[in-house]
Amino acid sequence: MTASTTQTADAADIYTRRESEARSYCRSFPTSFATGRNATLTDEDGRDYIDFLAGCSSLNYGHNDPDMKQALIEHLTQDGIGHALDFHTAPKKAFLETFERLILQPRGMDHKVMMTGPTGTNAVEAAMKLARKVTGRETIVAFTNGFHGMTMGALAATGNAGKRNGAGMALSGVARAPFEGAFGADVDTLAQLEMLLENPSSGFDMPAAFLVEPVQGEGGLNAASREWLEGLGRLAKRHGILLILDDIQAGCGRCGTFFSFEGMDVEPDMVPMAKSLSGYGLPFAALLLKPELDIWKPAEHNGTFRGNTHAFVTARVALEKFWADGAFQAELAEKAAYLETRLEAIAGMLPDARLKGRGFFRGVDVGSGELAAEVCAECFDKGVIIETSGAHDEVVKVLAPLTIEKELLARGLDIVEAAVASRVAARSPAVSANIAAE
Amino acid sequence: MTASTTQTADAADIYTRRESEARSYCRSFPTSFATGRNATLTDEDGRDYIDFLAGCSSLNYGHNDPDMKQALIEHLTQDGIGHALDFHTAPKKAFLETFERLILQPRGMDHKVMMTGPTGTNAVEAAMKLARKVTGRETIVAFTNGFHGMTMGALAATGNAGKRNGAGMALSGVARAPFEGAFGADVDTLAQLEMLLENPSSGFDMPAAFLVEPVQGEGGLNAASREWLEGLGRLAKRHGILLILDDIQAGCGRCGTFFSFEGMDVEPDMVPMAKSLSGYGLPFAALLLKPELDIWKPAEHNGTFRGNTHAFVTARVALEKFWADGAFQAELAEKAAYLETRLEAIAGMLPDARLKGRGFFRGVDVGSGELAAEVCAECFDKGVIIETSGAHDEVVKVLAPLTIEKELLARGLDIVEAAVASRVAARSPAVSANIAAE
Amino acid sequence: MTASTTQTADAADIYTRRESEARSYCRSFPTSFATGRNATLTDEDGRDYIDFLAGCSSLNYGHNDPDMKQALIEHLTQDGIGHALDFHTAPKKAFLETFERLILQPRGMDHKVMMTGPTGTNAVEAAMKLARKVTGRETIVAFTNGFHGMTMGALAATGNAGKRNGAGMALSGVARAPFEGAFGADVDTLAQLEMLLENPSSGFDMPAAFLVEPVQGEGGLNAASREWLEGLGRLAKRHGILLILDDIQAGCGRCGTFFSFEGMDVEPDMVPMAKSLSGYGLPFAALLLKPELDIWKPAEHNGTFRGNTHAFVTARVALEKFWADGAFQAELAEKAAYLETRLEAIAGMLPDARLKGRGFFRGVDVGSGELAAEVCAECFDKGVIIETSGAHDEVVKVLAPLTIEKELLARGLDIVEAAVASRVAARSPAVSANIAAE
Amino acid sequence: MTASTTQTADAADIYTRRESEARSYCRSFPTSFATGRNATLTDEDGRDYIDFLAGCSSLNYGHNDPDMKQALIEHLTQDGIGHALDFHTAPKKAFLETFERLILQPRGMDHKVMMTGPTGTNAVEAAMKLARKVTGRETIVAFTNGFHGMTMGALAATGNAGKRNGAGMALSGVARAPFEGAFGADVDTLAQLEMLLENPSSGFDMPAAFLVEPVQGEGGLNAASREWLEGLGRLAKRHGILLILDDIQAGCGRCGTFFSFEGMDVEPDMVPMAKSLSGYGLPFAALLLKPELDIWKPAEHNGTFRGNTHAFVTARVALEKFWADGAFQAELAEKAAYLETRLEAIAGMLPDARLKGRGFFRGVDVGSGELAAEVCAECFDKGVIIETSGAHDEVVKVLAPLTIEKELLARGLDIVEAAVASRVAARSPAVSANIAAE
Repeated sequence: MTASTTQTADAADIYTRRESEARSYCRSFPTSFATGRNATLTDEDGRDYIDFLAGCSSLNYGHNDPDMKQALIEHLTQDGIGHALDFHTAPKKAFLETFERLILQPRGMDHKVMMTGPTGTNAVEAAMKLARKVTGRETIVAFTNGFHGMTMGALAATGNAGKRNGAGMALSGVARAPFEGAFGADVDTLAQLEMLLENPSSGFDMPAAFLVEPVQGEGGLNAASREWLEGLGRLAKRHGILLILDDIQAGCGRCGTFFSFEGMDVEPDMVPMAKSLSGYGLPFAALLLKPELDIWKPAEHNGTFRGNTHAFVTARVALEKFWADGAFQAELAEKAAYLETRLEAIAGMLPDARLKGRGFFRGVDVGSGELAAEVCAECFDKGVIIETSGAHDEVVKVLAPLTIEKELLARGLDIVEAAVASRVAARSPAVSANIAAE
Repeated sequence: MTASTTQTADAADIYTRRESEARSYCRSFPTSFATGRNATLTDEDGRDYIDFLAGCSSLNYGHNDPDMKQALIEHLTQDGIGHALDFHTAPKKAFLETFERLILQPRGMDHKVMMTGPTGTNAVEAAMKLARKVTGRETIVAFTNGFHGMTMGALAATGNAGKRNGAGMALSGVARAPFEGAFGADVDTLAQLEMLLENPSSGFDMPAAFLVEPVQGEGGLNAASREWLEGLGRLAKRHGILLILDDIQAGCGRCGTFFSFEGMDVEPDMVPMAKSLSGYGLPFAALLLKPELDIWKPAEHNGTFRGNTHAFVTARVALEKFWADGAFQAELAEKAAYLETRLEAIAGMLPDARLKGRGFFRGVDVGSGELAAEVCAECFDKGVIIETSGAHDEVVKVLAPLTIEKELLARGLDIVEAAVASRVAARSPAVSANIAAE
Repeated sequence: MTASTTQTADAADIYTRRESEARSYCRSFPTSFATGRNATLTDEDGRDYIDFLAGCSSLNYGHNDPDMKQALIEHLTQDGIGHALDFHTAPKKAFLETFERLILQPRGMDHKVMMTGPTGTNAVEAAMKLARKVTGRETIVAFTNGFHGMTMGALAATGNAGKRNGAGMALSGVARAPFEGAFGADVDTLAQLEMLLENPSSGFDMPAAFLVEPVQGEGGLNAASREWLEGLGRLAKRHGILLILDDIQAGCGRCGTFFSFEGMDVEPDMVPMAKSLSGYGLPFAALLLKPELDIWKPAEHNGTFRGNTHAFVTARVALEKFWADGAFQAELAEKAAYLETRLEAIAGMLPDARLKGRGFFRGVDVGSGELAAEVCAECFDKGVIIETSGAHDEVVKVLAPLTIEKELLARGLDIVEAAVASRVAARSPAVSANIAAE
Repeated sequence: MTASTTQTADAADIYTRRESEARSYCRSFPTSFATGRNATLTDEDGRDYIDFLAGCSSLNYGHNDPDMKQALIEHLTQDGIGHALDFHTAPKKAFLETFERLILQPRGMDHKVMMTGPTGTNAVEAAMKLARKVTGRETIVAFTNGFHGMTMGALAATGNAGKRNGAGMALSGVARAPFEGAFGADVDTLAQLEMLLENPSSGFDMPAAFLVEPVQGEGGLNAASREWLEGLGRLAKRHGILLILDDIQAGCGRCGTFFSFEGMDVEPDMVPMAKSLSGYGLPFAALLLKPELDIWKPAEHNGTFRGNTHAFVTARVALEKFWADGAFQAELAEKAAYLETRLEAIAGMLPDARLKGRGFFRGVDVGSGELAAEVCAECFDKGVIIETSGAHDEVVKVLAPLTIEKELLARGLDIVEAAVASRVAARSPAVSANIAAE
């Protein structure tokens, strides 16, 4: 990590002195941020950055949306209740009614909402616990390259070896199956999974649930096809296995629709939600669950910060502002098409690169983690905050706010493109000459 | 649950229709809350309640403290960064510097701060994982009646059978030892624990850590004595076992000092913090850890909402306002003495009742969960929000904000006392006559 | 189960009254056996049976081999030590020297011999424990349709759902991979396994060992090809994974050579042995392990009956009689060729049947468990003891003693063939007509 | 280990070259044994030893009992079936009938017999699995200093840290409770256990079973009192917990009666048996289980060597010879009284020594493992084979055959007494002088 000039000596000191080595993003983006407005971050020295990370998709509506901000300030000003455990409150009621009206009912979903501790991993843990309680089975099938959280239950379902090693002990209760394409495009991973389920001597215990991200964010922007997800849903139904679609990162519009699985013939039994659910980047998570699964006893799963009241306020505004009609979704589709075109072009600059993801959940697999890191570092120097994902950190991912101004999106992509070109040039004079000639 | 008159029909509907059966406190306090100011909650019908629950000790400084509120509104107004993953930000730096200056340095603590997902269970999980990594041992010793969280790692350390059953599978990695007094006042539980550790055939695997609350909140306000905690610390040191003092509920002033273990000759290796850490009831948690234990690799344990920026803003104000000098602590000691006197008197009204807890973390074991529930229900009718704890819900606990106005504290305690008297009278005319005669 | 006429009323009584319902083979072969000579069993009524089960391959040298019998009677007569824990004894020394001279040295193996409790599952457990100790990793990879034993460690590695359910709890420490052909002949299961091992986000923890039967007996006589086993060995080496070849059922000549993996370019790190190791059907098991893995401390794994002295006596005779030169192996090859020809013909009688196994470890997959059961029942009526295996009990397996007289082998196979023909006729008049016409 | 003169160079070679380092007893008794007759072992050099180890209680009727020997030779001579899986056979029927008539019926027991793999650990695993299946609970409570076997299920219940470490991974499914006296004579360990069971927040999951040895052999000859065992039985009944009395080492007459728990008001649900069950030191184990627990499906738990036929032959003779009337038991009582007197005297020679055990299952805690090892080594030099047990190997245990000739018992005890005296003298001239003066 090269010390940034914006980083004063004593600021470095306090983090070195007092913050755990577990800190990470601050190492890639070594400056101190002060303000945020939609897709623009400004550091303490007044330098602007285009935010292509968006809080890892926690800021799908950008930083400090003015309508949500106003609603939150009003709530604060009036001494609206701030922390309320799981009491009934006006903001909670308004959120639930809005969520029912604008999200559930139009999509024909009858799910109930469980307020879990306000992080994705808490919602995933609640889903895993409930799946086991309901079915009386222990095994949850998670998929290669899946990421579901850092607490012991969810971590067992997370594929990344580095994260798993953090557990300090073996992780149990999860079996692993290949995600679509994990063994190459020509291997039908669902057929293999079915063979394991139907072979009584396979040693593959009948699972309580499949736990899967429709698009794997951390795993490398691997987007499952409609066919695969629908097939997985049918397989689940045939065997009495619950289907948990983890929409923590892929949901809230990231894939172009509110849920990532809209338009598919698949009915998830449970949907963990978090990240952009509050709309404003506030800690908030919930588990959607089919009513017939709601066998929880009062407080059987609880948590002090379940149902963050400030988040209820902003989440309601987000739903009303962006999802009351189809305008936002239409505009998003346009932007997504633009993004796809630009990233296809960038991928074309590298021999083995390929476009990844779906909707506004996109990236380019540049073929190596080293190259991806160089690209991101150069982007940061040029004013774009962008990160990698994938098992080898080989995917440069664009997680801009869905609300990003078109001009800013274009400018950011120009910078990414230039960074790729520069890296290509640095690596191979011949390739560089070709690019220059275009 | 009797439907409250303040609860309109359709409000009941939305919760019944859409919120999971896991909801709980709203069943005991069936009204819809609108605003909060220090120790006073007001519902949508304008009725005031004295808050003797304080968000289960998440609101030690009351609802909507005006200074924190102002700082947060200013931050919002200026588009101060809201969600920042674990970037360096001005509010984070200010929080860390203030925490170092006002909390760590004066107490001679050199701990580092790890930002975990913003719930207590996330901080506990991080501590458990790290203890296993550092020691290469798997077992964490947790204690009878302990409560540490609902995610699978922390849940394994939680004693409550109802919560444990929610897991849907066996919980592993934790061995259980008796808390002080668990086998009666005359049994030296530490001596027994040491016998197990020193007997190579005990089958009690050498643990990575002891995980213990200095005062058990959910477990029934069981306060460990200084002797016991110091003895546990010595036992840990002798055997190379890490000491994790879970101060999530007992810390942040609840026991009369910032940490619950101040003034004791005990040096915790790790201290999970949450609940009142933000000062304002916002989701926020951290793990304090000795620098030599900080072997985390970057992002080896992470979480989207680690380091809630809004919470940094309010937490800093809370530290400056209440912990910059000894005034608040002195005032708190006075109030705690008053509380003790009043609760002693209330306990004296019942033959088998006894005072529980320490500092401002107090309650009365009334001998049965049924009686405790009746007392709490009657208190709610009279305008006091108060809850039970303990293995049999037998403790009526007073978790008022530390900042509660003395008059309001007195009034609330009058109502509790009257409720106890009323219950006594209802149960036993004879006892009732005695009380009346006093 | 049809009550046999040879079963007197009170005999039935004692088993019903006093033996656990777990008993099984006695249900398929409802008579009471009295004597055994090579491949012939005789029941209490004097009826002879051809033994095509051979104690599930524990009697590779037949019943009551006269040379072993004589040696054992001499040992008994002289009050040779019978039970000796793991003392040094003359029979133990003689066994070890003979095993070294006739088995290990000619095959270029430098393995040490660990005397475990005298059952296969004990030897497998020792191998699993040691693999974990040596590598510091927990996961053992076992394969679909594998069978390794009934104690909790080995049971975790056993695929059969019925056996696994007997555990009464979840089984841990084992991950499952597909055996060769588990996903069809065209799927390269090793390539898939390697992809999981090389993908750091696969969630497939780096294993301590591969545990595999070169030919799966209980799993349906699935014989791994030389290419697959060699590939598995190379994969293991590349990743520092130990290779445990479970030769409990496939070894001791069953596949035509002493070890099932002879002639392949594969070096197992450990080889659990049991079943026919004593030569006489006596309880005896051992674990062969590479000397560099022998990090056991004295008695770190032990067992009262490790190193059964009577078994040392008979095992030594077995080695000297059958493995001192190549005569037995040559004769066995001839018999195996005959068996193959006959079973190919039998398989040809059924549309979907196919020959399974290798060497003298053979059977016919008749396509359904129902049909296989009928065939076996009819064989028993005609005087042949034969059983099924496979996930659906769909394989009629021929596990005759390797020493079976050729004439008896032919006679037994005639009976099996006739039983298949009879079942075919009963099921399909048309097919029956065809067979009759041949 | 001093090399014995009876050990030729190449004999040493074969064990060093080829037997795993896990071997143990041969290190303490470095000679090669040839024959055994009752309590006398003779090595290859013709030297006699008095056997005070008796195969760790596997040879309660001594070596090579002539009646069992004759029956076994007859069986062999007639080609009586040797290995029979779990077929019905004449010897099995005879054994079951005899066991029913001479053991179960006279003691009012209606248990069924489950033939498990022929080692103690297999029988314990079967009991643990069945307890979990029957109750639907996972936890088995085992006790401090308990020893139950080396396979993963039973090892989890074994207390010894050295053995546990051999697992290479964490052991699960077992909670630990203190055996009688584990916390000192004045602590009521049952009362504490009951408090844990009755406290719903204790974190002590309601167990499937208590698994306990009435007298702990390996654990140091700790004999539970009648009061404690009866109390444990009542506690089990009150909570629907199954009681498994592991009589593997303590049973078959070792404590003076066939079962160790005779004469107590306790009804075990299951009783694992092994060691001396065959009478002749042959591998044989069984699980006695109450008929109402016999929910096993056929072959749900199985094993190739379950029901060792040779063992049926000898076990039947053992029952008829020793347990058909009360003569053997009466004679044993006399010998046990003599043993007690002698060991009391020996214990009296050492300041902190004390007599341990019950019946003919006796030893002296000499206060340190070092001293105990010296005593045993000196005994071996003088011709007595004797070993230690206990968490610190501090107990010199006398496990002579129950059938030992009185004169030989006296002679062996003289040698033990002299060894203790010699060690005392070597350590403390003063003490030695006192002894000499007596």
